[in-house]
Amino acid sequence: MDFIANAVGRLVPTELEGRRLKPFAGAHADLAGGTGYGGRIRAAAQYTDKLLPDLDAAIEACAIRDGMTISFHHHLRNGDMLINLVMEKLAQRGLKDLVLAPSALFPTHEKLVALIESGVISHVEGSMNGPIGRACSLGRMKKAAVLRSHGGRFRAIQDGDLHIDVAFIAAPCSDAHGNANGLYGPSACGPLGFALADSLWADRVVVVTDHLAPFPCYPWTIEGGHVDYVVQVERIGDPAQIVSGTTEITRSPTRLLIAEYAARFVRDSGLMTEPGFSFQAGAGGVSLAFVKFMADYMAAAGITADFVRGGSTRFMVDLLNRGLTRYLLDGQSFDRDTVASLRDHPRHVETNPFVSYNYHSKGCFAQRVQVSVLGATEVDLDFNVNVNTHSDGWLLHGIGGFTDAADAHVTMITAPLVRNRVPIIVDRVTTVTAPGEMIDVIVTERGIAINPRRDDLQERLRHSSLPIVPIEKLSAMAVAMTGVPEKPRFNDRVVALIEFRDGTIIDVVRQLIPRE
Amino acid sequence: MDFIANAVGRLVPTELEGRRLKPFAGAHADLAGGTGYGGRIRAAAQYTDKLLPDLDAAIEACAIRDGMTISFHHHLRNGDMLINLVMEKLAQRGLKDLVLAPSALFPTHEKLVALIESGVISHVEGSMNGPIGRACSLGRMKKAAVLRSHGGRFRAIQDGDLHIDVAFIAAPCSDAHGNANGLYGPSACGPLGFALADSLWADRVVVVTDHLAPFPCYPWTIEGGHVDYVVQVERIGDPAQIVSGTTEITRSPTRLLIAEYAARFVRDSGLMTEPGFSFQAGAGGVSLAFVKFMADYMAAAGITADFVRGGSTRFMVDLLNRGLTRYLLDGQSFDRDTVASLRDHPRHVETNPFVSYNYHSKGCFAQRVQVSVLGATEVDLDFNVNVNTHSDGWLLHGIGGFTDAADAHVTMITAPLVRNRVPIIVDRVTTVTAPGEMIDVIVTERGIAINPRRDDLQERLRHSSLPIVPIEKLSAMAVAMTGVPEKPRFNDRVVALIEFRDGTIIDVVRQLIPRE
Repeated sequence: MDFIANAVGRLVPTELEGRRLKPFAGAHADLAGGTGYGGRIRAAAQYTDKLLPDLDAAIEACAIRDGMTISFHHHLRNGDMLINLVMEKLAQRGLKDLVLAPSALFPTHEKLVALIESGVISHVEGSMNGPIGRACSLGRMKKAAVLRSHGGRFRAIQDGDLHIDVAFIAAPCSDAHGNANGLYGPSACGPLGFALADSLWADRVVVVTDHLAPFPCYPWTIEGGHVDYVVQVERIGDPAQIVSGTTEITRSPTRLLIAEYAARFVRDSGLMTEPGFSFQAGAGGVSLAFVKFMADYMAAAGITADFVRGGSTRFMVDLLNRGLTRYLLDGQSFDRDTVASLRDHPRHVETNPFVSYNYHSKGCFAQRVQVSVLGATEVDLDFNVNVNTHSDGWLLHGIGGFTDAADAHVTMITAPLVRNRVPIIVDRVTTVTAPGEMIDVIVTERGIAINPRRDDLQERLRHSSLPIVPIEKLSAMAVAMTGVPEKPRFNDRVVALIEFRDGTIIDVVRQLIPRE
Repeated sequence: MDFIANAVGRLVPTELEGRRLKPFAGAHADLAGGTGYGGRIRAAAQYTDKLLPDLDAAIEACAIRDGMTISFHHHLRNGDMLINLVMEKLAQRGLKDLVLAPSALFPTHEKLVALIESGVISHVEGSMNGPIGRACSLGRMKKAAVLRSHGGRFRAIQDGDLHIDVAFIAAPCSDAHGNANGLYGPSACGPLGFALADSLWADRVVVVTDHLAPFPCYPWTIEGGHVDYVVQVERIGDPAQIVSGTTEITRSPTRLLIAEYAARFVRDSGLMTEPGFSFQAGAGGVSLAFVKFMADYMAAAGITADFVRGGSTRFMVDLLNRGLTRYLLDGQSFDRDTVASLRDHPRHVETNPFVSYNYHSKGCFAQRVQVSVLGATEVDLDFNVNVNTHSDGWLLHGIGGFTDAADAHVTMITAPLVRNRVPIIVDRVTTVTAPGEMIDVIVTERGIAINPRRDDLQERLRHSSLPIVPIEKLSAMAVAMTGVPEKPRFNDRVVALIEFRDGTIIDVVRQLIPRE
């Protein structure tokens, strides 16, 4: 296996398990694009009745064979019941070497570890977290996993890099034609856009619903014209677990201070009062607090943002309802309050990874966001960010939309200086998820570091009372608190590829030699 | 040139001007589909600023060369100002042999005849009517025109049969990213779906607007991620002419009787009271009256349709507002009253030729419509329908959505027995647009003919007082009134191909030898 140093200095293979790989060359080095995967065209006359009696009938109809790639979406989050159900049925049929291509996995999918170990699942192409990530770290998968951002997954499917044989789409509401959305029914989950690429390019598409509605089911986030079969089941998810994310603002004084610093940075920089202001923030406790601080500052200054970008939370919905933003552009629901808003508020708008994040397009919304506030497990002195592995080497998180959202005009990382007695700011991140050139500001409770590339931001904050310091100083403070942590040990085997949004390889994860 | 008899007995070429052609084999003979045209993939980093100062800059940026295919949509109908403007600019640049690929043309585009005669435009792939059709009939185009239905046009672009080099999309409302819709601004025209395929697969896409809105312009019928350039101009259309179709119900007693017969047929057949009732009707005077009769019958019977399909008219909107239909699924606005309804009514829903009409898909809405009511220029004893040429041989109309909408469960043709002293029911249609196997009922003021294939409909109407007669009797009545009309004379040259929705050739139009 040949390795080559990529643009962030990581050695990445030029070929792995038969797939030729391109090294990461810079966040915007790919100007060429390419040719799309046209996909298989079907004839409408074959589709007079798509309703099948049960999942087994759909599995039969799709003629699933060993080695095929089976995909799912993650809008039901930890409440999803479909992935386990389908994969167990495939295991019972004696199938082997399946490629599992979910947009993400959650702790509820832990039982898939057994299917990985028994060879039913060869590997995962898609985000993993927790138990599946641990199994990957330990080399349990037959082939290397491929981690992609939300936009990168759309691109890979669009371009034909990730060919899906059969997509199973858990749909909270669908008609018999397969028009489906996530807004109605007992398993309502809000948006359904992570399944869009699957519906457009998978060879076979099965919509599985527990709420069959009369035609036309509208909105048709998933268009029936892309759907082969519709199956009604009793339940696709556990309502108590669907989109039941963190909805409480952190009470940690440290985290509240980080959120306040981040919001003050946006205000004091003057970005907030410029025309066309917009921002994006996630669902962690710091992000929720950041949104609340922003709401206060915007209200005080009489500012209405052009748009804010979710994953949506009730704090985002509050911005919309208070007139502090014209639009809430929402790719996924993180809490249940947001689902009703998406259904009923005409300016709470559903998005998908094509419009939001796809780098192989004629532009996407990520480029139009003024401020993006994101978390990280590690940041290094070159501002490279890791969101996949921890400093102890375990692969525990997917990329989510990180690399896509980091294309904002100003990308800010919020993180405590130290987490579980481990520094967040390190010499060299364990894994590079996103290159330092995309990361502009690191906000910790002890100080804020601005990327030296961003003279403009340094200048904007010249008269601010915020504690702006060089990143080296933050690193030194952390090490002074924790000592230099022990590095994890890996063997040579590449167990996962970290794919950048343009399809190049920005880093690899190697098999972990666990500490005693 | 080799000719072969197709499934409706027409001799069609197997090859023309370098393009291999497949003969029509039956309405649902194509079960295979194929492989889609992937299209050129671009990289988002190239798209940081799409706004160009004027149309000339866009033409330069698109590097338009001789022989390229240039496309437009027709939602502004006879009010469109963009097609003439762009084509004249291309003529001024000395370009030749351009292929014009509009979704339709209107009388306002008559001045394009001069560009056809001067060789700027080689031929038209798309619907023509009136003056351009006359020029085609007289052999003025360098190559044969290709006429496709709305669904057939989407299919041809999707499958790569019609490759568009540059699409110019007249957009009543757009933001700087190219997110565009037809709902706002001085040129509001309602839906914008005829431009969807162009936006998805054209190599370059230029959105031209006279109403530039802040980002995000929502809804984004055209997604900015598919758009290369945005140009703001003073006016894209003449508001007095945009969607200013017929809005008055016919006062002709003959036509009113036809409409009443058609509506009574739907009622008396029992179709109206079956679960899942739906229908589609167009914008002619008979269609408007039909909708009004249906409204009366449905109200009297306490029926709510699952959906009705437009092109929308104020009579369709009235159905929605009176609760006589759950949804109005609308592909184009025929009158101005409908635009505000589409914008404001949550169940007046915009559609496009993919969801509605595309045969190369996993099904489309056309198959789910119970009753489709359509017009024709001729119907023959095999129930074949002509909507393109008149009995005197002139090519004067596009296909519109005819062949697609004819896939409904029951397709009814409404027409007077005689029009301008020419019978509508003839031995053999001048041109076959749609095969008789798709046509179920012919409704005239003198009688109603049911296709013998439809025993079920014969049976349903057994006890009806409607004047149901064999089609031969209608034909004989017409000839008794008019005598046998003179047949047009053609020379051998094929001036237009009539393409069926699956891409096969159902008929050709030959060069007309005009009567003295």
